[in-house]
Amino acid sequence: MLKEEKFELMDAKGVRNFLPEDKIPRQKIMDMLRETFELFGFSPLETPAIERLDVLTAKFGAGEASDVAKEIFQLTDQGERSLGLRFDLTVPMAKVVGMNPNLNMPFKRYQMQPVWRDGPIKLGRYREFWQCDVDIVGVESMLADAEIISILDYVFTKMDFKFVIKANNRKLLNGIIEYAGYKDYSMKAIISIDKLAKIGRDGVRDELLDLGFDKPEIKKLLDSIDIKGTNSEILDKVSKFVKTEEGKEGIKELRELIEFCESMGVQNLRIDLSLARGLEYYTGPVFEVYLEDSKITSSVAGGGRYDKMIGMYLGGKKNYPATGVSFGIEPIYEAMKLSGKTEPVKTTTEAFIIPIGKNLPDALKLSARLRERGINTETDLMKRGISKNLSYLNSMGIPYAIFVGEREVAEGRFTVRDMKTGEEKKIESDKIPGVIKR
Amino acid sequence: MLKEEKFELMDAKGVRNFLPEDKIPRQKIMDMLRETFELFGFSPLETPAIERLDVLTAKFGAGEASDVAKEIFQLTDQGERSLGLRFDLTVPMAKVVGMNPNLNMPFKRYQMQPVWRDGPIKLGRYREFWQCDVDIVGVESMLADAEIISILDYVFTKMDFKFVIKANNRKLLNGIIEYAGYKDYSMKAIISIDKLAKIGRDGVRDELLDLGFDKPEIKKLLDSIDIKGTNSEILDKVSKFVKTEEGKEGIKELRELIEFCESMGVQNLRIDLSLARGLEYYTGPVFEVYLEDSKITSSVAGGGRYDKMIGMYLGGKKNYPATGVSFGIEPIYEAMKLSGKTEPVKTTTEAFIIPIGKNLPDALKLSARLRERGINTETDLMKRGISKNLSYLNSMGIPYAIFVGEREVAEGRFTVRDMKTGEEKKIESDKIPGVIKR
Repeated sequence: MLKEEKFELMDAKGVRNFLPEDKIPRQKIMDMLRETFELFGFSPLETPAIERLDVLTAKFGAGEASDVAKEIFQLTDQGERSLGLRFDLTVPMAKVVGMNPNLNMPFKRYQMQPVWRDGPIKLGRYREFWQCDVDIVGVESMLADAEIISILDYVFTKMDFKFVIKANNRKLLNGIIEYAGYKDYSMKAIISIDKLAKIGRDGVRDELLDLGFDKPEIKKLLDSIDIKGTNSEILDKVSKFVKTEEGKEGIKELRELIEFCESMGVQNLRIDLSLARGLEYYTGPVFEVYLEDSKITSSVAGGGRYDKMIGMYLGGKKNYPATGVSFGIEPIYEAMKLSGKTEPVKTTTEAFIIPIGKNLPDALKLSARLRERGINTETDLMKRGISKNLSYLNSMGIPYAIFVGEREVAEGRFTVRDMKTGEEKKIESDKIPGVIKR
Repeated sequence: MLKEEKFELMDAKGVRNFLPEDKIPRQKIMDMLRETFELFGFSPLETPAIERLDVLTAKFGAGEASDVAKEIFQLTDQGERSLGLRFDLTVPMAKVVGMNPNLNMPFKRYQMQPVWRDGPIKLGRYREFWQCDVDIVGVESMLADAEIISILDYVFTKMDFKFVIKANNRKLLNGIIEYAGYKDYSMKAIISIDKLAKIGRDGVRDELLDLGFDKPEIKKLLDSIDIKGTNSEILDKVSKFVKTEEGKEGIKELRELIEFCESMGVQNLRIDLSLARGLEYYTGPVFEVYLEDSKITSSVAGGGRYDKMIGMYLGGKKNYPATGVSFGIEPIYEAMKLSGKTEPVKTTTEAFIIPIGKNLPDALKLSARLRERGINTETDLMKRGISKNLSYLNSMGIPYAIFVGEREVAEGRFTVRDMKTGEEKKIESDKIPGVIKR
């Protein structure tokens, strides 16, 4: 028989349960994202939570990225194989590309799944959280990056946010750093520039000083990445002093990107030369989305081009140009809640049927009829009285109550109560859906 | 910099990647289930993959169920806490109910998430697989069980399967076992009866003999659970010899269940006294769905009432009557594939735009216009020639190609090619959505 044991009923640290009031609006956001990705011709991919540990860690060398490797939840199976939980969606996608050499290119995939990181818990940081990635593999042209940016523009416009899509280019950034005289420190400088918003100009200056940069060069660098103006003004200014081949290539890519984005109708793209992004693997355009007039000051989406990562991950046998973006499901959801664009919803039920007296069978039949007409319908299962049922409807936020009593059944018209106004009307069953879906 | 490492690119054992051709139809099935559950007034719940190990194992005593406990993937976090991956969706739901004492009752929830079991790998058995549960907590009335059965009827009818919903009642089964003279062995007899389809009447007889049952009693038992007839004929026959209070209660519950199901319009409910289900925790009605005319002979959904489990799991402080069903996403998907109800789809893209010559900006504009009209649209990103693009469309199964050349732009009419028939027509851009969505 079942055994009772003493234990504390609690969650693991850093994980969450999403009750209906959170799950319903989150699901709505994810549905909207899915719909958009498919509108742009992307297909869904699902990969397992559990991967071989060597596959998860293969990508990492020294440096920043290996912090993530330290945060992998490790486990073993019956066969004592070393396994881990995925910590992002990029590594699993690279694995799928590598294991399926006959995939049609371009491979345009989206993926929305939880990931796990055994990191410190802070406000808004969890050990299990959702990621949502959209990537294009196999396309060298800036058309792919423009399409990704076009998706960003579409999504945040559709969500009715005021926002800006900041874009830069790693090649150009390298060109600027070389212009400032620090070619060999370019990755370190990029990681430092990435902290500009967080630690400010003085903070970055101090970091660069520590790295061995000189004051005049630091000024040159910080002034360069601070250039303001329209997108083409910025590129015109920077092309006056960026003279390396790589830097010029970066400028050319950004000009192409802007042109394609314009054709695609993108409204909110702004070149920002101080945008760096912390990850090593970017090779071309990088971009991030920031909301305006929102308390969420971190980026809500970010990505860029990483032409070398997949190929290197697959042993360098083949070249896989790739670009993509990751949507921050968690900050997007927070921003939606803060701006009142989404409200907690406990149920999607539209009509709740309350049988009066012995009219349960008729109530059940009416429920089935309303469902056939696409109305989310519940029937009282608890045999509660009218007032208890009505307070249940209020607490759940169900908009309509329908009473099924003897007289209603005889007349073929049912009393429909609008829970917001308290107004009651007798309506023929066939006309109820029209009233509710109104 | 990134480091290259030697490793084998492969998956963990028993897990799968779902490429678009599998993910798209699976997603479609899950969407349809979600829609149905909400039609019946159920709300979504999401729980974390990682739970405290003591929470996962608290439910289990001796016996069958503890095999599942052995299959839990265990892990620890930074704080050396013992954790595990969820192996089903019932335990997490019970945890949520226990941790949220103010939940409105009835709590009608659905949950669709992967679960993990470190078991042996067989055909169709995986270490990571999806479960899909629908449960009603807080309702004692058979109305709740009838609603669950009504959902089963709705789902499999909508999927256009021929099927039967078999139902029985554990109380009645106990009554029959007692009538056969083996009251004290009722759980063991039930576990044996559960294997009837697998090991046959002789197999069950041998097992019961081994348990110490006598031949005449075994015959009495096996003859009783083999009673055939209409639902009410079966119940009439069995009520002639089942005399215990519990057994009579079981008959009464089944009669109520049948009556409610009739009011709800359920067509495919058949009482089957040999239906047992292997899990210990059932306390009343049990049910399973089997497909007819399908190679999938295992049940595609199954469940029942478990009035004591949640309360016991929560330390027995409060009573939580509950009933529900688990849909077998994997066998349902297999059955759909086998019956040709679903076909592999590599993309949901409806239109693919091929720019001719220098008309890329116009192609991009047309793409944006079609997306605004709800058409899933791709543009050639690879700058491939027409024939290469057309063979890409064929291999991806994209139904329409649209050519954007100089003449088309001048005329404001674009050549739309139906990829199935090869037919080409010149159509004004505003009329293209109508042709594609036709």
